[in-house]
Amino acid sequence: MKGLAMIDIGKVGWIEKEKPKVGIYDALVRPLAVAPCTSDIHTVFEGALGRRHDMILGHEAVGEVVEVGSEVKDFKPGDRVIVPAVTPDWRSMEVQRGFHQHSGGMLAGWKFSNFKDGVFAEYFHVNDADMNLALIPEGVSLEQAVMVSDMVTTGFHGVELADVKLGASVVVIGIGAVGLMSVAGAKLRGAGRLIAVGSRPKCVEVAKEYGATDIVNYKKGDIVEQIMKLTDGKGVDNVVVAGGTSESISQAIKMLKPGGSVGNVNYFGSGDTIPIPRIEWGSGMADKTIKGGLCPGGRVRMEALASLVKYKRVDPSKLVTHVFHGFDKLEEALLMMKNKQPDLIKPVVIID
Amino acid sequence: MKGLAMIDIGKVGWIEKEKPKVGIYDALVRPLAVAPCTSDIHTVFEGALGRRHDMILGHEAVGEVVEVGSEVKDFKPGDRVIVPAVTPDWRSMEVQRGFHQHSGGMLAGWKFSNFKDGVFAEYFHVNDADMNLALIPEGVSLEQAVMVSDMVTTGFHGVELADVKLGASVVVIGIGAVGLMSVAGAKLRGAGRLIAVGSRPKCVEVAKEYGATDIVNYKKGDIVEQIMKLTDGKGVDNVVVAGGTSESISQAIKMLKPGGSVGNVNYFGSGDTIPIPRIEWGSGMADKTIKGGLCPGGRVRMEALASLVKYKRVDPSKLVTHVFHGFDKLEEALLMMKNKQPDLIKPVVIID
Amino acid sequence: MKGLAMIDIGKVGWIEKEKPKVGIYDALVRPLAVAPCTSDIHTVFEGALGRRHDMILGHEAVGEVVEVGSEVKDFKPGDRVIVPAVTPDWRSMEVQRGFHQHSGGMLAGWKFSNFKDGVFAEYFHVNDADMNLALIPEGVSLEQAVMVSDMVTTGFHGVELADVKLGASVVVIGIGAVGLMSVAGAKLRGAGRLIAVGSRPKCVEVAKEYGATDIVNYKKGDIVEQIMKLTDGKGVDNVVVAGGTSESISQAIKMLKPGGSVGNVNYFGSGDTIPIPRIEWGSGMADKTIKGGLCPGGRVRMEALASLVKYKRVDPSKLVTHVFHGFDKLEEALLMMKNKQPDLIKPVVIID
Amino acid sequence: MKGLAMIDIGKVGWIEKEKPKVGIYDALVRPLAVAPCTSDIHTVFEGALGRRHDMILGHEAVGEVVEVGSEVKDFKPGDRVIVPAVTPDWRSMEVQRGFHQHSGGMLAGWKFSNFKDGVFAEYFHVNDADMNLALIPEGVSLEQAVMVSDMVTTGFHGVELADVKLGASVVVIGIGAVGLMSVAGAKLRGAGRLIAVGSRPKCVEVAKEYGATDIVNYKKGDIVEQIMKLTDGKGVDNVVVAGGTSESISQAIKMLKPGGSVGNVNYFGSGDTIPIPRIEWGSGMADKTIKGGLCPGGRVRMEALASLVKYKRVDPSKLVTHVFHGFDKLEEALLMMKNKQPDLIKPVVIID
Repeated sequence: MKGLAMIDIGKVGWIEKEKPKVGIYDALVRPLAVAPCTSDIHTVFEGALGRRHDMILGHEAVGEVVEVGSEVKDFKPGDRVIVPAVTPDWRSMEVQRGFHQHSGGMLAGWKFSNFKDGVFAEYFHVNDADMNLALIPEGVSLEQAVMVSDMVTTGFHGVELADVKLGASVVVIGIGAVGLMSVAGAKLRGAGRLIAVGSRPKCVEVAKEYGATDIVNYKKGDIVEQIMKLTDGKGVDNVVVAGGTSESISQAIKMLKPGGSVGNVNYFGSGDTIPIPRIEWGSGMADKTIKGGLCPGGRVRMEALASLVKYKRVDPSKLVTHVFHGFDKLEEALLMMKNKQPDLIKPVVIID
Repeated sequence: MKGLAMIDIGKVGWIEKEKPKVGIYDALVRPLAVAPCTSDIHTVFEGALGRRHDMILGHEAVGEVVEVGSEVKDFKPGDRVIVPAVTPDWRSMEVQRGFHQHSGGMLAGWKFSNFKDGVFAEYFHVNDADMNLALIPEGVSLEQAVMVSDMVTTGFHGVELADVKLGASVVVIGIGAVGLMSVAGAKLRGAGRLIAVGSRPKCVEVAKEYGATDIVNYKKGDIVEQIMKLTDGKGVDNVVVAGGTSESISQAIKMLKPGGSVGNVNYFGSGDTIPIPRIEWGSGMADKTIKGGLCPGGRVRMEALASLVKYKRVDPSKLVTHVFHGFDKLEEALLMMKNKQPDLIKPVVIID
Repeated sequence: MKGLAMIDIGKVGWIEKEKPKVGIYDALVRPLAVAPCTSDIHTVFEGALGRRHDMILGHEAVGEVVEVGSEVKDFKPGDRVIVPAVTPDWRSMEVQRGFHQHSGGMLAGWKFSNFKDGVFAEYFHVNDADMNLALIPEGVSLEQAVMVSDMVTTGFHGVELADVKLGASVVVIGIGAVGLMSVAGAKLRGAGRLIAVGSRPKCVEVAKEYGATDIVNYKKGDIVEQIMKLTDGKGVDNVVVAGGTSESISQAIKMLKPGGSVGNVNYFGSGDTIPIPRIEWGSGMADKTIKGGLCPGGRVRMEALASLVKYKRVDPSKLVTHVFHGFDKLEEALLMMKNKQPDLIKPVVIID
Repeated sequence: MKGLAMIDIGKVGWIEKEKPKVGIYDALVRPLAVAPCTSDIHTVFEGALGRRHDMILGHEAVGEVVEVGSEVKDFKPGDRVIVPAVTPDWRSMEVQRGFHQHSGGMLAGWKFSNFKDGVFAEYFHVNDADMNLALIPEGVSLEQAVMVSDMVTTGFHGVELADVKLGASVVVIGIGAVGLMSVAGAKLRGAGRLIAVGSRPKCVEVAKEYGATDIVNYKKGDIVEQIMKLTDGKGVDNVVVAGGTSESISQAIKMLKPGGSVGNVNYFGSGDTIPIPRIEWGSGMADKTIKGGLCPGGRVRMEALASLVKYKRVDPSKLVTHVFHGFDKLEEALLMMKNKQPDLIKPVVIID
């Protein structure tokens, strides 16, 4: 079968591989729609995961089940499914401790295009199908469903980590696709005032549609100052960090009220350390909580999020600014994520 | 001054009283809009609080500050304010334990028309103005604001008690004004499927507007059976009890998945006990949690909820089916809550 | 192989069965020590689980691994292990929802002597060995270890459900073996005053050793009255229900402060309903939380609890009042749990 | 009256001041026992709070009530009381948001020797006596009680922030007085393995008495390496940072399992930033939570902690290595905290 792979650091290309074999609990899936992720760009062009050879890329997909293992009970060939970016091994100590994202080790619940071949192939392998797949509900489009697999679960997780309460004032730093889902997620959890930090006009437009009440443009000055001014010097209850710079956590702490909390879903790609500002963190005693996590995956999570789309609580298709048709458009779509043009949020390739 | 009072059990009437005196931390407020509550009916006609003589009724109000005590810092005569139904004594052990609603004793954070004269008067007294009042934000109408004081905070609290998560399936039992706010609150916290139990056409219509995805009518059969059928026998994640009968908790337990939870904000008015069904509660071991609480009050709560109205996250004015103008319409409005006509959800009296 | 079985309701006896077969993730275990549980008595003599024929009894065991499936990685024949009473199927939706005890359905994480043969046999089967077994740490005796499998995890769970905080005042209703572990668990979580409700002198003695500061004897009057008197009418922060009568939840609510919570690990064996007292529950609004759950099982739980024994945080061997030696003493030990003699807390049969 | 004051940065001395005046909710207290704190040293010799002139030092005291305001209901002259280091203004927005430590602003619940004169005087002022004082329970010594005011509440708070669960493996970095109370607190919350990081023989000895199972000496090599070795490379569930260096948070993150958490109660006194290590924090996605807070104060907290001493759950008097008698010994005791001799943990001055 064909797949779009990381040939080496800095090099992408089509390769031929054998179709994956399916274990007794697993499934083989043919993609119906896939989306490239900024992580794919980090992986290939920045070597974020280290050197990999001929590893098929991609971890955002919906597909059609082609084959299932003998012990799979709830899925059968022909089923149309959401495949989460995070497909844990549910038989692991980390699951028992409450962190399936880290099953088998830190971040190891993320397997596609990390520890194994990804979804940018004619077929891909899903471990533990009964535990990791979810049917696409009726009325949910492929564009919407493929956004659920990573963008929705990640963006929403930032809001969960920040623990947004009814009527809270919230800042979301970064309004790429993940950040926009954090904006939507903050609204969904009952945020009142909702300040989005970003600059690109298309993203700003969509942020407002998803519920942002104020926009802060980092190009117009220090964002901490801007937000403290907007809030009469009081700061906000929660900050979701979904982008920005290596200073984003620091800025978040500075704009929080005592007792506030930061939820991070940004990938910090460089530097040895991420700084916490000492004074604004109360010399260690401000009761400002810092959480940062990997998006939850697995079946129950996908079903819950898909139900939010089905019942029109959120429409992630607003993220999809560019739609390609055909497997062979994958490379073009991927490179789009590298050379982000002004009107891009997220491209999707429909293969069906 | 004049006030509409409980003369005795079963008897309502206008009385004359002296204008309340204001302590150093307190405020005197003139109502701009008030609303009668089903609790007022329980109080007068069912003697729910026991015998009271010449106690002025009412605990849902917005008003204009007329006078403040010498230590009040943040409010001044002329300010237009939301007055929460629950106005705790913040200097109490219960506040330190995290339950301001019960400051001074169980349910004792509720003072108006319970331990002291209520808001159905030309003037009323507010204890600890800086801690219990909130300015009406610009753009929020009197009808909306008066709903915040009790209906919004109570309805939303049911959702908080039930601890609704993103994508959860939720049942709300009872869709009077409080239950409708539980429907709106469940949507605001990110419920997916949202089943409202009720029968009156007006309430059903508004429940759908607030986000109900399914309606179950108790007149069409056992609600547990109906809901188990709707959910393919699986049950739901959360139930908010905001009305119904003495069996509502029991029904809630029966329709919950193991590990699910009930949030109750219904007032149970009769009977010695409220039954938990033994088998469906797993003989005590089903991990189905039961919480029931009084609505949070105080300034921060009112500000948070008012911001949700200001930023158009929820519009509680849909509850207000009948608007009266003039103080002298209060008795008529109150009796409306007794003789609930089919198209009534909530009457409001605008006094301004 | 031989096993001690429920022949029918009311009838216990030795039977012959084939040695269980081991699946690829499973283990076959030979018991080293077992203990009969009150549940075994409920099962046989009250038909609590319904009619069962020739089902081998017992769910409290430590043993030696005899055989493992091909996919078992962390255990091998000869390993000495704690076998939890609850051995979930970790590949289930309930695990993803956070309730492994109910994997596969309400209470269905409890398999031994419920859905499959128990541990009172020459050999028994353990599903998913890597996920459900734990090595007995060095320095932990068989008597201690066998108490971990059910009594410790259940008793402690009551304390977790009640959410005991540092310095909280706590009542434990019922001081059989489970309740005594709730006493020890409440101390371990930092309870201050700790009132144990019971009457048998041996249990009272051990309750004091485990940290009870006060003893209330239900034979000396109403326990609610006694406890309200002890606490100057204030009540307590938490109640763990680990025994008592069908009125235990009701009594617990009556002795709680507003905002307090009940954790139940008692098995309620009869009656259609369990009553909540209306008035003391604040007519539904007292913020008194009611939780009731099945004990957590699985490997991580067993390892955590075993570490508490290893590091001498708790010594569950004080529960073991009677030790038998030899497999053939099992029936005698079991019947001891039926005819509870005054000085009995828990019998253990050492088979090694 | 006389008081031991910060004359200026770097300079301590006795001064004369007027006896404080008591507001209607306040109390005047005469110290019975006081203790100097490392914070006093930071304040004077490092100028940690900035320049202060003639500010009386000290925030750890127990005393005798001498005078109360007209509205004080629960205390009267002659009462022997614990005075918490943190005495919030309970009428504040931060209290309503759940963070009384920060009432009136970040860290502003801490008033003594910060915003107002401290307790090292013949008399000192306590705001809101009913809400901030607690009676010394019978059987609790002055040495024990004075440790409750700061050392116990702070050390325990680190454990609360880290959210230690039953059987968790815990590291406490720093075993001065606060860290030793974190060790005791971790045991009290049910830690299993409990690794204390420190070097001074006296502190190590007391750490073991309070429940440490392992000691790691930073003088013998990198503490992260030592702890990873002790735990077979797995790391621990929780780390309490109660001392150490500017690298302590970083070290804590490195020794945590994914999903683990850090609770900080250390005062970070220098540097612009506190570093989080990028890689070990999973590039932002390791689900390792960082909390840092100021100790809770107020009456309910003091009563809860005092009950733990009364019921012999913890004996903080082991911290008290040096006891002085007489008010005039205060300066000597204070300077002891500056020139920490090897066998010092905490000096107490008994004035009674």
